[in-house]
Amino acid sequence: MSFYDATVPAFLQILGSLNGILSKAEIHCEAKGIQPDVLLGARLYPDMLPLSRQIQLACDFAGKTCARLAHVDVPSAADTEKSFADLRQRIAKTVEYLKAFKPEQFEGADRKDVTFPAGPNTSLTLKGQEFLNRMAFPNFYFHAAIAHGILRHNGVDIGKRDFLGDIPIKTS
Amino acid sequence: MSFYDATVPAFLQILGSLNGILSKAEIHCEAKGIQPDVLLGARLYPDMLPLSRQIQLACDFAGKTCARLAHVDVPSAADTEKSFADLRQRIAKTVEYLKAFKPEQFEGADRKDVTFPAGPNTSLTLKGQEFLNRMAFPNFYFHAAIAHGILRHNGVDIGKRDFLGDIPIKTS
Repeated sequence: MSFYDATVPAFLQILGSLNGILSKAEIHCEAKGIQPDVLLGARLYPDMLPLSRQIQLACDFAGKTCARLAHVDVPSAADTEKSFADLRQRIAKTVEYLKAFKPEQFEGADRKDVTFPAGPNTSLTLKGQEFLNRMAFPNFYFHAAIAHGILRHNGVDIGKRDFLGDIPIKTS
Repeated sequence: MSFYDATVPAFLQILGSLNGILSKAEIHCEAKGIQPDVLLGARLYPDMLPLSRQIQLACDFAGKTCARLAHVDVPSAADTEKSFADLRQRIAKTVEYLKAFKPEQFEGADRKDVTFPAGPNTSLTLKGQEFLNRMAFPNFYFHAAIAHGILRHNGVDIGKRDFLGDIPIKTS
């Protein structure tokens, strides 16, 4: 297995599941006569970020992490999404971006230094493996799981299986 | 970097953070005159699991995952925790269990098959790397993040930094 296998497929799996739960959330809004903005702006607590921002951040952590590990230009997004369709488009663009990476770009990346912002005026440097496992994954999964939790809390009929997404079933 | 580096430290980091947020939750209960059982039984939605069970499951996914990857006996727990102290003890036991693993036990484990239960009467087989990234991590981080979300939702004064825990800062 290569370091690529530890990164891109993991992000793609959860981005796919986020796309799925947003679709279910949109259908839920239509069925219940709920304004989409209400769900898109829903938070678990006033000092937490709303659903739309959780999705944007999950996309960011997926795309930027892979860029940093492959040592290519880090993409940025305007964060202007205003609807479920916009957010699904953001996910689709992130998926497309991730799928363009080649396994070769991650060769040896686990041992290479990655320097990344860790606050307004600070940056940290970690080995690629540590950056992935100690910074990128916890952040990525946090925002994905909180997005899921916001929808559950608002009564959208989803379960943990919707979070896990498509796990490749092989009996090799 | 070894496959061990992708597993044990990642779990330990978040288990440490869960221990920290449970301590803050207990202090919050004392300060506000809240019965601990209320928070331990809190859920984001009636069909979701309560805080105590989220912590137990995070511990399970950490310990059992490492056991399966190292191909040693899979530990089981009675899930009898009734207090914050009990849950912190459960985390401490899991931490102790994880710390006993040696990097050698994970050598080549990314390419070895892992067979694990995927429902009451079904099991799945994946390569170790896929099992970790597509099954174990999403489940582990899900329960950890939802535990965090439950506490946030109930007004405990924690933030994402408490979720991330101690990230090793090196400028090598």
